[in-house]
Amino acid sequence: MQSGFNLCLDAVRRINSNGRSETGGVSRIAYTEEDRLARETLVEIMHETGFQVEIDEVGNIKGTRWGSRPSAPPIAVGSHIDTVPDGGEFDGILGVAAGLGAVLDVAERCPDHVNPLQVIVFSGEESSRFGVSNVGSKSVTGYMSLKDFFDHRDDQGISIFKALRDFGLSPEKADRSRILPSDMKAFFELHIEQGPFLDQTGIDVGVVEAIAAPTRLSLEILGESAHSGACPMDMRKDALAASSEIVLAVEKLAKEESAFKTVGTVGDCKVFPGVMNVVPGRCSLKVDVRGIEGKSIGRVFDGLLSEMERISASRNVEIKKKVISRGDPVVLDGRLRRLLGQVCEDMEIGWTDMPSGAGHDAMYVASIIPTAMIFVPCVGGISHSSEEKVEIGRIRPGYRALVEAIYRLVTKDR
Amino acid sequence: MQSGFNLCLDAVRRINSNGRSETGGVSRIAYTEEDRLARETLVEIMHETGFQVEIDEVGNIKGTRWGSRPSAPPIAVGSHIDTVPDGGEFDGILGVAAGLGAVLDVAERCPDHVNPLQVIVFSGEESSRFGVSNVGSKSVTGYMSLKDFFDHRDDQGISIFKALRDFGLSPEKADRSRILPSDMKAFFELHIEQGPFLDQTGIDVGVVEAIAAPTRLSLEILGESAHSGACPMDMRKDALAASSEIVLAVEKLAKEESAFKTVGTVGDCKVFPGVMNVVPGRCSLKVDVRGIEGKSIGRVFDGLLSEMERISASRNVEIKKKVISRGDPVVLDGRLRRLLGQVCEDMEIGWTDMPSGAGHDAMYVASIIPTAMIFVPCVGGISHSSEEKVEIGRIRPGYRALVEAIYRLVTKDR
Repeated sequence: MQSGFNLCLDAVRRINSNGRSETGGVSRIAYTEEDRLARETLVEIMHETGFQVEIDEVGNIKGTRWGSRPSAPPIAVGSHIDTVPDGGEFDGILGVAAGLGAVLDVAERCPDHVNPLQVIVFSGEESSRFGVSNVGSKSVTGYMSLKDFFDHRDDQGISIFKALRDFGLSPEKADRSRILPSDMKAFFELHIEQGPFLDQTGIDVGVVEAIAAPTRLSLEILGESAHSGACPMDMRKDALAASSEIVLAVEKLAKEESAFKTVGTVGDCKVFPGVMNVVPGRCSLKVDVRGIEGKSIGRVFDGLLSEMERISASRNVEIKKKVISRGDPVVLDGRLRRLLGQVCEDMEIGWTDMPSGAGHDAMYVASIIPTAMIFVPCVGGISHSSEEKVEIGRIRPGYRALVEAIYRLVTKDR
Repeated sequence: MQSGFNLCLDAVRRINSNGRSETGGVSRIAYTEEDRLARETLVEIMHETGFQVEIDEVGNIKGTRWGSRPSAPPIAVGSHIDTVPDGGEFDGILGVAAGLGAVLDVAERCPDHVNPLQVIVFSGEESSRFGVSNVGSKSVTGYMSLKDFFDHRDDQGISIFKALRDFGLSPEKADRSRILPSDMKAFFELHIEQGPFLDQTGIDVGVVEAIAAPTRLSLEILGESAHSGACPMDMRKDALAASSEIVLAVEKLAKEESAFKTVGTVGDCKVFPGVMNVVPGRCSLKVDVRGIEGKSIGRVFDGLLSEMERISASRNVEIKKKVISRGDPVVLDGRLRRLLGQVCEDMEIGWTDMPSGAGHDAMYVASIIPTAMIFVPCVGGISHSSEEKVEIGRIRPGYRALVEAIYRLVTKDR
């Protein structure tokens, strides 16, 4: 029998044979033909390795290896296998493949385990297609309703509802897939960090304390267009200069909260009319603030509001703001986090507590099931790109910690 | 016989009957059908009012009312009648129409004038079509060559050369149209200010001291894209934050030179990838610095270079710069400027010396012929827009000053 880690790498390779993009990346958009082929490959692997497979009404795949007591709550591992367009080879899929390997490794080490062991693939995690993320995990945890299935559409105007139906699923019965606290004993998600922290510090394992929910603002700065040569400096209402102050204010406010790991970003700035010889009359900005400490996020948000008031007054420009989202950070299960930390200590794996700035399926599952996340390094922190890379030697410690943690949970109940 | 000022307003109205845009603005792009119709209307008006009309190889129209000595150098007035897309009713055309009216008024007051009186329409003044401005006035003054005619193309890939040929002109013989110092005694251009200064100060006439030549830079700021949630603040190379510092540096440096009327603008900022959840990895900026004091422009330019070095080093981003143009300001003729100032004093017209931040045909003509420019107010300084407006009562003083200045020049030689 092959070792779990080899199975993991092999599963990544096999699933990625579907959806390769021209640049060498992976384009496996949710509920497309590429997604279907990858899901078929995954189910094939699950069958080969002794999993019983179920697919729910919204396309989440659940593979189960039964223990000695089928009624006992399963210990589950999971993530997603859909990707952004031209994405990387490990974002999401690594957590699924690691789950397959870990379940096999644990079952081998502990053949008489009591609890069922599960691998779960949540569908539609990436927001690339419908503008909303985590269709599968939000549906089963009540964060997404039938109304949302109709409201969100892709570029072709296809709603989530229609996409799921076309995919052979039953979104109208999504409620039947809801998970209950008794459905799992624990849920683990292993994922590449998608940030540079582990890569740059040389630490192998990040035990996620909490997952940030972004506070997002869309801003419109209304100044006055003018001839760039003919309008004196003191008669201008330059929307780009005002926007620049906002960009730097977001950066400064977030840096002041770095002790709390809060981050703030202006990801886009569009300038109108945006030509060489016109003082910009209008700009639109996209602001994203994240952290795992609600109060710290609040300070950045409030600080930004008062900075915007000052900028608006001093420059005589109007600033319109629209709050797109303002979520609370999700703190992961303390007992499982301590378990993972202890496992790393015992195995002499370098580890650290850290926040997740990015969203994950785990943050929704955590509302129902005790949940933990393991981050492994990716080179340069790059993801959502065909440039995404991992060093195999640096993801193995995270995999080993996952196996050991499940093993300890399983044997404790034996 | 109608008064010159009424003829002026009437000519504006008649010429603008060609090329009205849907929003009520004027779209009369150089060398298009709308331009042709407007030129025909203009030539018609010239014939009706006793001008002899010539059109040169690059489409400049010259209308002449002869004086008692045909060999004497003409006193000329002119501007352009092409517009930007959806532009205003007075930008350019007012100077041509004012020329028609002024020549008639002067001829009526001084029927025995010696020098010929001319109205000149320079073709292709706006840069909207080919990305270069002042095709007509640059050609006749040696600022544009046959090579430039081939190098610059419109969005359809049509070169200036082909556009001129299709318009029935002879760009291959452009050299024949070159003007010599002996060709005119003086050239006047009356134009709306295109800035807010006269409108806001209530001064009726601006006598242009010098025309700014823009120093233009295109900048590329290369940072590193990263996940907006997952990348800690102190590990970022945020191209937009670096760009924001540059925008504010341009503004600050120009403000420090406001005593010299130097202005600095970042007119565009493009952000890549430009999405909510990615730290910007790359930005491109367009910088435009103008003034009429070369040393002051130089201080802004040098200051910007050292600011960029500092920003590049402190943020660990690369800043690539490309100097698009670096021209010298053009100082207009002192004798004619003093004449205009004296005329305003004598007629009790409120006037001021002022720079022109915008470029004009006059700046090229000035390299060969003693040249002056009169600015009249436009509401809010708005131009290059269908929102451009003038108050008739506030352009009349500038018109009167023009007539009086020509009259004094003419009678002096009588």
